[in-house]
Amino acid sequence: MSQAVEQGTLFVISAPSGAGKTSLVAEMLRSDSKLGVSVSHTTRAMRDGEQDGVNYHFVSRDEFEAMIARGDFLEHADVFGNYYGTSQVWVRETLATGRDVILEIDWQGAEQVCRLMPECVSIFIVPPSAETLRERLTGRGTDAPEVVERRLAEAVEECRHAVEFDYLVVNDDFAVALADLLAVTRSQRLRMPVQQERHGDLLAALSERS
Amino acid sequence: MSQAVEQGTLFVISAPSGAGKTSLVAEMLRSDSKLGVSVSHTTRAMRDGEQDGVNYHFVSRDEFEAMIARGDFLEHADVFGNYYGTSQVWVRETLATGRDVILEIDWQGAEQVCRLMPECVSIFIVPPSAETLRERLTGRGTDAPEVVERRLAEAVEECRHAVEFDYLVVNDDFAVALADLLAVTRSQRLRMPVQQERHGDLLAALSERS
Repeated sequence: MSQAVEQGTLFVISAPSGAGKTSLVAEMLRSDSKLGVSVSHTTRAMRDGEQDGVNYHFVSRDEFEAMIARGDFLEHADVFGNYYGTSQVWVRETLATGRDVILEIDWQGAEQVCRLMPECVSIFIVPPSAETLRERLTGRGTDAPEVVERRLAEAVEECRHAVEFDYLVVNDDFAVALADLLAVTRSQRLRMPVQQERHGDLLAALSERS
Repeated sequence: MSQAVEQGTLFVISAPSGAGKTSLVAEMLRSDSKLGVSVSHTTRAMRDGEQDGVNYHFVSRDEFEAMIARGDFLEHADVFGNYYGTSQVWVRETLATGRDVILEIDWQGAEQVCRLMPECVSIFIVPPSAETLRERLTGRGTDAPEVVERRLAEAVEECRHAVEFDYLVVNDDFAVALADLLAVTRSQRLRMPVQQERHGDLLAALSERS
């Protein structure tokens, strides 16, 4: 019997730096093979240990601007002189195969994406206290005060937009926060519209008198 | 600091008989101490091994009808000459303490409850195939054909309303279905409106420049 391929879900995950988002998302991808992460395009220089196509798709400013002009990006931003963006084509194609996609972006990117794809599910991750956040952002002790200040100001600005997201996960205990995130992704796949696509034949068979 | 008590979530769970709902809900209650189950009122006779206040609140027809007249029930039904109903007072008081409540009711009860409490979350459980359902409902071999036929007709009628629910869980593997149900209950607690009540102070502290 024909089985329609269900559409994957787009998860947008934002957090202030220091909330542990990157480690949590990495662990989500290891725990759940149905999840994929979008690799952003950027114009910033490749750093030691980074790989093109893995950490980012590294492109020139000219290429990036041509992509903007073509409407290739779901969201893009200019961060301190470097462009960062999420390819719309890749995201839509991946969702169409039934895989779920995670985008790790800031609140502004999240806002752009959720406007273009209102069916997306957005999650905000916060540290357990303002003190923890401050410690994590100042703790390295190697950065200039103005760099630390800018980082803190950005974190506060990011947190001000937390309430615009669908879900909030508090990263106090890593394992608990991970289980929370996986509960959100798992439960989305159980929503009736998603399940109707996946189990349409079963629902039809159960509703018929044999 | 004052911490508002968050409101619990009402979960309405329905299924055709033979889907494994009762065992799954029992295991959910064992796995998650934040979940409570509503004990229904009934006018049917107590069976061997049943306890008043545990399996049901056993009441007389007069008492039950007085409760209907007072509007005490969130939903009630007359099933083959016996009344069954869910106390509205108990459900609302339990939710107000922050606990989540599960109601195991049929699609008609679910419809009544979701109309009165539209913030409720409804879950439908199905067996993995129509054959499995048929086997489970006829398998005992000790029941009269017309009893089996009525049970099958009811199961089909129940399944026709599956699509009206928020979530669908397929009980093929018990452990998977249990994890699905627990993902739904867990994720509800992570929704932003719930988390804003629970972590309002944290969100405020994170959004302020210190």
